[in-house]
Amino acid sequence: MGIEEQALEVKKAQVFLGALGLEKRNRALDAIARGIRLREDDIIAANKRDLIAAESENIAPPVLKRLKFDTGKIDEVCKGIESLIRLSDPVGRTILARELDTDLELYQVSCPIGVIGMIFESRPDALVQIATLCLKSGNGVILKGGSEALHTNRILSEIIRDASVNAGIPDGWIQLAETRQEVSLMLDMEDKIDLLIPRGSNSFVKYIMKNTTIPVLGHADGICHLFVDKDADVSMAVDLTEDSKTQYVAVCNALETLLVDSSIASDFLPLMKEKLESKNVELRGCEITRKFIDIKPAVEEDWSTEYLDYILSVKVVDSLDDAISHINKYGSGHTDSIVTGNGESAERFMNLVDSADTFWNCSTRFSDGFRYGLGAEVGVSTNKIHARGPVGLEGLVIYKWRLKGNGHKVADDSVGNSTFTHRIIEKEYKRSL
Amino acid sequence: MGIEEQALEVKKAQVFLGALGLEKRNRALDAIARGIRLREDDIIAANKRDLIAAESENIAPPVLKRLKFDTGKIDEVCKGIESLIRLSDPVGRTILARELDTDLELYQVSCPIGVIGMIFESRPDALVQIATLCLKSGNGVILKGGSEALHTNRILSEIIRDASVNAGIPDGWIQLAETRQEVSLMLDMEDKIDLLIPRGSNSFVKYIMKNTTIPVLGHADGICHLFVDKDADVSMAVDLTEDSKTQYVAVCNALETLLVDSSIASDFLPLMKEKLESKNVELRGCEITRKFIDIKPAVEEDWSTEYLDYILSVKVVDSLDDAISHINKYGSGHTDSIVTGNGESAERFMNLVDSADTFWNCSTRFSDGFRYGLGAEVGVSTNKIHARGPVGLEGLVIYKWRLKGNGHKVADDSVGNSTFTHRIIEKEYKRSL
Repeated sequence: MGIEEQALEVKKAQVFLGALGLEKRNRALDAIARGIRLREDDIIAANKRDLIAAESENIAPPVLKRLKFDTGKIDEVCKGIESLIRLSDPVGRTILARELDTDLELYQVSCPIGVIGMIFESRPDALVQIATLCLKSGNGVILKGGSEALHTNRILSEIIRDASVNAGIPDGWIQLAETRQEVSLMLDMEDKIDLLIPRGSNSFVKYIMKNTTIPVLGHADGICHLFVDKDADVSMAVDLTEDSKTQYVAVCNALETLLVDSSIASDFLPLMKEKLESKNVELRGCEITRKFIDIKPAVEEDWSTEYLDYILSVKVVDSLDDAISHINKYGSGHTDSIVTGNGESAERFMNLVDSADTFWNCSTRFSDGFRYGLGAEVGVSTNKIHARGPVGLEGLVIYKWRLKGNGHKVADDSVGNSTFTHRIIEKEYKRSL
Repeated sequence: MGIEEQALEVKKAQVFLGALGLEKRNRALDAIARGIRLREDDIIAANKRDLIAAESENIAPPVLKRLKFDTGKIDEVCKGIESLIRLSDPVGRTILARELDTDLELYQVSCPIGVIGMIFESRPDALVQIATLCLKSGNGVILKGGSEALHTNRILSEIIRDASVNAGIPDGWIQLAETRQEVSLMLDMEDKIDLLIPRGSNSFVKYIMKNTTIPVLGHADGICHLFVDKDADVSMAVDLTEDSKTQYVAVCNALETLLVDSSIASDFLPLMKEKLESKNVELRGCEITRKFIDIKPAVEEDWSTEYLDYILSVKVVDSLDDAISHINKYGSGHTDSIVTGNGESAERFMNLVDSADTFWNCSTRFSDGFRYGLGAEVGVSTNKIHARGPVGLEGLVIYKWRLKGNGHKVADDSVGNSTFTHRIIEKEYKRSL
């Protein structure tokens, strides 16, 4: 079966999956978790094959680390599924209920998006996570994992398919793609795939975004800023710089550029330097910064670089508004934070910085679905439509309008909508199949 | 100024526009309506220049009709603005408020999308409508109208800009593009334009959708179906067929294909034929249909054709599920309706038909923002993300996450999120600038 046929299979199954009640979807999720635990040995054996092949090809250690799928990771993904089961149903929620006319009732009801295309690199846990998120939200999915994880991905998708189909989910809802060529084909399937979710390196995500007209949920860069305002508590600013930069450097919500108001620079910069250098962070500063502290010079490119490493660029700005302009120019619309004791400045910053997450007096590292309490994270989005910032299950649903009448014709309205009652109804729509 | 610079101007102004309170935006809308009424004579004179030029170029009568902007249309757009003023604020709405930890409060607050690119054909009223919708929702806009309407568009955008800027809206928020070449450039400006809204013919919208990675809000085809179930009230089915097909043929929510359950075909089809032919509708039937009524044969292409004319394709199907399959295969995901006295069949139809609008016992013509009571219509969307079906002001906003802390660091969490309180707060976020 080619990738186009696979997508049609997913679509066919998804129509029915999308209409199933929560209980059936949860029962299938439970069966998947049990299936994975039951076949732990087979999964680990398949993963060993991938690891041995990867080692023999001299694949980089960080990739090997992500590829490894051991007892600990298996337990983690199963616990993830178990907590997913406990989440409330994102599907079938009545968003709006309105009487348009006598016996003519309009309901706006949440429903799955349809067919999700998931393209990810070496992590096998991503496969389980995204497949189960799709199932919970009634979506079908085509998964394309990294070729290094071929055997692990195969057994995992097989277990997920078998367990879910035995539990009553229509066969076909989950499909695995295995070749790079299939990715190119997927990017052109805008009539068969409703949403693409790429997970991987910046350049990988950027490539996907640039080469498809299918909507993409995700983020390429995470160029996050912390602005130390003139009214900042200096010690808090040092602490938040340290946490935002060093708590975990390899993630999208880690700090990359520190902006400092000129009137607080002489107090703040030396303390910041001491703290960050004690954590082995390389500092790169603008000319003015380097008048206060002796660090490497930053070049223009630094302001738009996501280091994902123990490197921080530092710039002194003349005002709050200069900081805002810098962020809106060089940032990636991900997460930006202000440190200040002045509520008005904080409000101005949060109003005018055009990013998914705008923070006041806290670490940029907080922008995360679990920390936000979303329950499960589909990904982080820097899109300006549909879903923004950390995205939970809500990002995998849309809505459908349902109108129930009794032979209502438009010709019976006099011109315009003067005959409409447009009365809000206090009623939940009951979906059933 | 080139189109790229214009987009940067819009962005710069929009950041501030997006943070303005409702009162200021409404005051500007009021000034625009007054400005348009005040300069009615100049507008009509400019429009005359366009009309004369168009006539001399032998432009088709329907285009001329859409191009004409007279006292009646001016009054209509001004009334539209006045009712837009009365709509509640789509911006600054608190969607979620959650305490993450002591003194660490998360708010999900609606905000404008940013820079909207509006590409439309000859209707000057579309310019006023979309510009004021953008202003109400705090968005900046680049408008590209049809070249036939050049003078009308120029004076209208000038009036809108002057009136709004005098009322305190940052200059630059509205820009006019005038050449076809600029459209191609706009399609590549995914870093400067956040959302494209094309209005025009199917082929025009399809072209836009196929040639940009910028999100597009709109619909190309409206291939709407009415399914007459075996449990339908025959007379209601005839009435709804007539209304869906003939009440206004040139619109996207008009009926294009009629599906009929075989067991009701002999009762229904002759009555339907009589009624529709009395309205001068050309019927094209499948083989089985033609055993019951003497009409032209339909060919494969008919099932995926949007006639926008007095033509209707008719197909007899064996069951409810066959009807659903046909719609999901040939439909455009716009509006589809079932006529039946059986609630379970209706529910199955509305659950399994994957369209923005699924109806029961009413005309397809109801799918419209004004009929739905959305107050103002941005457009109709057949997208599967962000906004679906008739789209009101809500389609022009997204949200931003705002997190307020007191020096909170992620390093202070023990592993995972065990320290989070994740308590819902009953509080509206107060935005102010």
